[in-house]
Amino acid sequence: MRITEMIQSKKVGGQLSEEQIHSLLRGYARGCVPEHQMAALIMAVWFNGLSRRETIEFTRAMAESGDSIPPGSFLPCSSADKHSTGGVGDKTTLVLGPLLAAAGVIVAKMSGRSLGHTGGTIDKLESIPGLSVHLSLEELVSKAGSIGLAVGIQTENLVPADQKLYTLRDATATVDSLPLIASSIMSKKLACSADTLLLDVKVGEGALLPEIADAQELASMMVEIGNSAGQRTRAAITDMNQPLGCTIGNALEVTEAIDTLRGRGSSQLRHLCLFLGSHVLALCDDDTEPEENYRNLASLLSGGEALDKFSEFIENQGGDPRITEDTSLLPQAEEMVEVRSRKCGCVCGIRTSEIGAAAQKLSAGRDASGQVRDPAAGIVLQKKIADEVQCNELLATLHRGSTADARIPPQLIDRVRSAFCIGETRILPPQLIRALVTDEGITHLKDHCVDNSVG
Amino acid sequence: MRITEMIQSKKVGGQLSEEQIHSLLRGYARGCVPEHQMAALIMAVWFNGLSRRETIEFTRAMAESGDSIPPGSFLPCSSADKHSTGGVGDKTTLVLGPLLAAAGVIVAKMSGRSLGHTGGTIDKLESIPGLSVHLSLEELVSKAGSIGLAVGIQTENLVPADQKLYTLRDATATVDSLPLIASSIMSKKLACSADTLLLDVKVGEGALLPEIADAQELASMMVEIGNSAGQRTRAAITDMNQPLGCTIGNALEVTEAIDTLRGRGSSQLRHLCLFLGSHVLALCDDDTEPEENYRNLASLLSGGEALDKFSEFIENQGGDPRITEDTSLLPQAEEMVEVRSRKCGCVCGIRTSEIGAAAQKLSAGRDASGQVRDPAAGIVLQKKIADEVQCNELLATLHRGSTADARIPPQLIDRVRSAFCIGETRILPPQLIRALVTDEGITHLKDHCVDNSVG
Repeated sequence: MRITEMIQSKKVGGQLSEEQIHSLLRGYARGCVPEHQMAALIMAVWFNGLSRRETIEFTRAMAESGDSIPPGSFLPCSSADKHSTGGVGDKTTLVLGPLLAAAGVIVAKMSGRSLGHTGGTIDKLESIPGLSVHLSLEELVSKAGSIGLAVGIQTENLVPADQKLYTLRDATATVDSLPLIASSIMSKKLACSADTLLLDVKVGEGALLPEIADAQELASMMVEIGNSAGQRTRAAITDMNQPLGCTIGNALEVTEAIDTLRGRGSSQLRHLCLFLGSHVLALCDDDTEPEENYRNLASLLSGGEALDKFSEFIENQGGDPRITEDTSLLPQAEEMVEVRSRKCGCVCGIRTSEIGAAAQKLSAGRDASGQVRDPAAGIVLQKKIADEVQCNELLATLHRGSTADARIPPQLIDRVRSAFCIGETRILPPQLIRALVTDEGITHLKDHCVDNSVG
Repeated sequence: MRITEMIQSKKVGGQLSEEQIHSLLRGYARGCVPEHQMAALIMAVWFNGLSRRETIEFTRAMAESGDSIPPGSFLPCSSADKHSTGGVGDKTTLVLGPLLAAAGVIVAKMSGRSLGHTGGTIDKLESIPGLSVHLSLEELVSKAGSIGLAVGIQTENLVPADQKLYTLRDATATVDSLPLIASSIMSKKLACSADTLLLDVKVGEGALLPEIADAQELASMMVEIGNSAGQRTRAAITDMNQPLGCTIGNALEVTEAIDTLRGRGSSQLRHLCLFLGSHVLALCDDDTEPEENYRNLASLLSGGEALDKFSEFIENQGGDPRITEDTSLLPQAEEMVEVRSRKCGCVCGIRTSEIGAAAQKLSAGRDASGQVRDPAAGIVLQKKIADEVQCNELLATLHRGSTADARIPPQLIDRVRSAFCIGETRILPPQLIRALVTDEGITHLKDHCVDNSVG
């Protein structure tokens, strides 16, 4: 009866009390609130939204529905977490994790698998021979405590209410509700109890949210949720109108991350990691300035400390650390197919979701344990937005590993070629970092990194 | 997958195709479409509505989900059906059924039990000793064919999709959606296959729809659905700002219906029955005019033919026909409590839903078979809107039968007293028949019946 009242209230634009929200989600997690009532409620939320206060309570109630890392687990050290809303070629965690750990911040991160056309950190890490991501909460805490960095797959009892609710949202066409997206992400972040949180909200054609206004709204919701729960939180709004860096695919992205940890790799990826890291350090220590932190982190890349930390992390989770010295130990392509341009001009756009979908197609299917069938599969981009292209010049290379079932079909080559828009006018690359959202509001940035060089 | 697409489509204001609607409801009736997806869809319908075309298809698809009376079952006679959207003291069917049957029209009607604060024809009929409403479809047709009138409770397989959907709407706060109300009512009417249909859409404080605009919209939806399915349909929009007639309660309403069939009773109830009946006859025979039909039907009341038909109907369904001559054979009150006014003045309003709720409270609870526990219980109104009241004068009498569990509590007396609004200014009674809706549109009526006399 009381659930029907809550649905009625949201339906006509009312607000739910703290007590109602907590009893709703407790009941839902326990199976006492039936799926059909929750479905009606979230559809009403899709139409009428949730107030900021409701969103915060909704998130807290979800976070309380399952396991959590005890707050203060890493004291006296600062701990940090990061989250990306998902993109194509987004290997930031693979760089930022070791970089922050090398700077003395503890990162105990739970990640997910790929979803739709966007990649997942867990799939990327599992391409490293021997590395295990199946850690209990205790193992995650202990491994992160010992070397500063651990990454595990989300445990089954991490925010079970969110896991149920996500399945329901998927079946009821209510995935695209900003307060529900915010509470889904932030409930998992709150349960992980890091002191600080850096959110990377992607915007553009290849992102969950193509529109900047939606990205800003989501970012500011999440920043407010985090800070109101005592987790110092900032968000960067960053470009996903083209893949990040020059590789898409699990082992390929690990290779690019290692390049970046060596102080090489695409300047775009390097800049983003240093920018995000500089704000994490500023959150950890009020006395530091992002600009100074940026320079210090850059020296951890050039000095090799970050790469050493990555190597230590791999070994700590059972993987083969030699891959950081010799990336040919990672799964390698058996077949490589070139995608060449049929036009000359300037790359004026890349349909990022198409590139992501093609990369998923190349490594398509998971085995019985849910692992990616072909970790070597993926796409290497030779051209990005603003690059000049000659007729018949290489745009991208498609990779297929030895574990794949079939050869790369010609349609896929055409699909990747068609994802490149070649125009006659020269344009500038898209601005990588669009805005920074803190508890004081939003700052629109003038991106000083326009270097778009690949590899 | 396809269901999610339909939800998405309705969510963003799109329209479902005929094929989608039929496959949705077929699947739902069979249990292949899960409740949570239907819940999300109907909440999207609550927000975005259904187009007239969608509403018609939705209704047809529901009507096809279960049993139906074969069309033409009563040829060469005309058959008629009526439906009220529900009110307090609405015993129209008990008068109109025998009246139409006496005029040569076949009425084979399926009715429901009381819902919320509104009464149900089935509960009223079951107060007649011996009378059975549990008829199969075949029995309903055969009994109506033999004497012109039969009334049964909705069979279990009458529009099972609607029965499932109504339960779901009740649990998800989506009862108040006009297209869903229209399709719920009309699917059952279409399944009963009468040639003609008269809808009585109640409007006012005691009605499902308090606002005239909503009542008009619902009426015109239902008239269009009926006519588009080949059922000649009209709707009257009638007042429910006070109870209809002067009795509320099952046996009490049967008594008042018998009074009206004798040509006596409240002029309000008599006028409404004659008005509705006159339009049924006009629908059955294009060559007749409602005004002439009204006079002919009035003579069937004064001549006793309508009462004789009621008697025949009761006997045909196993009841004791002597009640039409001696209403003391109906369940009688054991306790009667007077509700007297504490003010003097003019009755300027009656909170009808409160009167309805008090009457339900008096006969509260059903036994294991779903029957009302106290059929004698109810309220007799001594005053109605526009009546003058002296201090300490009788407003109403509460009745409790011998089968009730407990004596009438004093709070209930206060509740009924408080439902009467006594003012200083004289006012006119509310207009009983507000509008008539036909396939040609809506006609607003000037009510010529302002006689408000009770009993």
